[in-house]
Amino acid sequence: MIKTLTNHRSIRTYTSQQIDKQTMAELLEASCRASNTGNMQTYSIIVSTDEKIKAALAPYHFNQKMVTQAPAVVTFCVDFNRFNKWCQQRNAVPGYDNFLSFSSGMIDATLAAQNFCLAAESKGLGICYLGTTTYTAKKIIEILKLPKFVVPVTTVTVGYPNETPNLEDRLPLEGVVHYETYKDYLPTDIDTIYREKESSEKYKQFTAENNKETLAQVFTDVRYTKANNEHFSKELLAVLKEQGFWE
Amino acid sequence: MIKTLTNHRSIRTYTSQQIDKQTMAELLEASCRASNTGNMQTYSIIVSTDEKIKAALAPYHFNQKMVTQAPAVVTFCVDFNRFNKWCQQRNAVPGYDNFLSFSSGMIDATLAAQNFCLAAESKGLGICYLGTTTYTAKKIIEILKLPKFVVPVTTVTVGYPNETPNLEDRLPLEGVVHYETYKDYLPTDIDTIYREKESSEKYKQFTAENNKETLAQVFTDVRYTKANNEHFSKELLAVLKEQGFWE
Repeated sequence: MIKTLTNHRSIRTYTSQQIDKQTMAELLEASCRASNTGNMQTYSIIVSTDEKIKAALAPYHFNQKMVTQAPAVVTFCVDFNRFNKWCQQRNAVPGYDNFLSFSSGMIDATLAAQNFCLAAESKGLGICYLGTTTYTAKKIIEILKLPKFVVPVTTVTVGYPNETPNLEDRLPLEGVVHYETYKDYLPTDIDTIYREKESSEKYKQFTAENNKETLAQVFTDVRYTKANNEHFSKELLAVLKEQGFWE
Repeated sequence: MIKTLTNHRSIRTYTSQQIDKQTMAELLEASCRASNTGNMQTYSIIVSTDEKIKAALAPYHFNQKMVTQAPAVVTFCVDFNRFNKWCQQRNAVPGYDNFLSFSSGMIDATLAAQNFCLAAESKGLGICYLGTTTYTAKKIIEILKLPKFVVPVTTVTVGYPNETPNLEDRLPLEGVVHYETYKDYLPTDIDTIYREKESSEKYKQFTAENNKETLAQVFTDVRYTKANNEHFSKELLAVLKEQGFWE
């Protein structure tokens, strides 16, 4: 188990092997065993395997090739639609049209997603998370026909690996973990925490390819820019309002 | 591995056995191997074992006894403070003072939390998530001394189990999973999905104890009320503003 956790690699190239129904059911069962708020299970999981649906989703995942290539694209959504309907049919008045409810649903959908991924990896499948889901939620809602009170929060492509990538680097544990309370970082701490990453040939090459002076600039100026973040923040907030979580 | 996933029970009573440093380090290593956005690792993990810190946190987790009883209380936070400092020291201008960045950090912190929990469970430890973290983030920020751009999103108590609870029920898979696109629920679907839950003696008793007509009313009128959700939504939004994620 620990080995499955520590051996994780994102898999972006898959063989043509499909995932059989029994296997998919096992992954979904494992997914739904994750902890969730009050056992309300305020999430839904959309499993898309149809070529047309995957092709329709692809542009909103910025045409990353995994979306059409993977046998299944699995979208994890906050879902208060089902719970609200249940309440209404049971003479109960739901009060989940707000940001807190969305947030707890988002945590629960994400925990379910990670269980799904680890179950998949333990069975020899490979996965990749698509962070684009919150950027283009509005379009994903249209394609997947999500009703009010349903918002997609993350997407996973899954299939049998056709590549064996190296393990990705991580910051040293002492750069991420604090004991008792938070110890803020001194400039020298930052240098220490990022030293290994910055001295690796891989990232030096990555910085050079992007014509940047520093690796940090690749993030701020190319990959995760302020302009894009601000644009997609507005879009995401508009989605929360349209889907009923901002009353 | 699948068995660890499907056997999950939240553990709320712990023995007095402490978690040794080596074990905790393994859990934290496994935690940080989770997928994350752009490998930026925009989260921090606060491990609190000090009795005074746990006692200070307890009221803000609504005095659930696990907080003081568990040997460790682990708070998973969105953290752009470290990343921003790195950017600033590397002649890069960070643009992460927005809701989208918070949301991606929230997903990443949650994935790390679930890896932590599964690593713990695979080693015979038990965990319980505390959903109260987003409700009382402002107070947790004070106690854990979280600087600007750091927001706690979930908390896990961890220790050696001193109880063996039954497996919790879950909705049938067909109530939570959709294929290709979302199929909205008819009233008869809702009845089918909730039938097993509603007919269980446990929930009948739970409904009676709460003096409610229906199980749904226990959620709407007692456990997760509109008034509380609206109050804590405002508080959480104020925290995002104060911590710098709403520019």
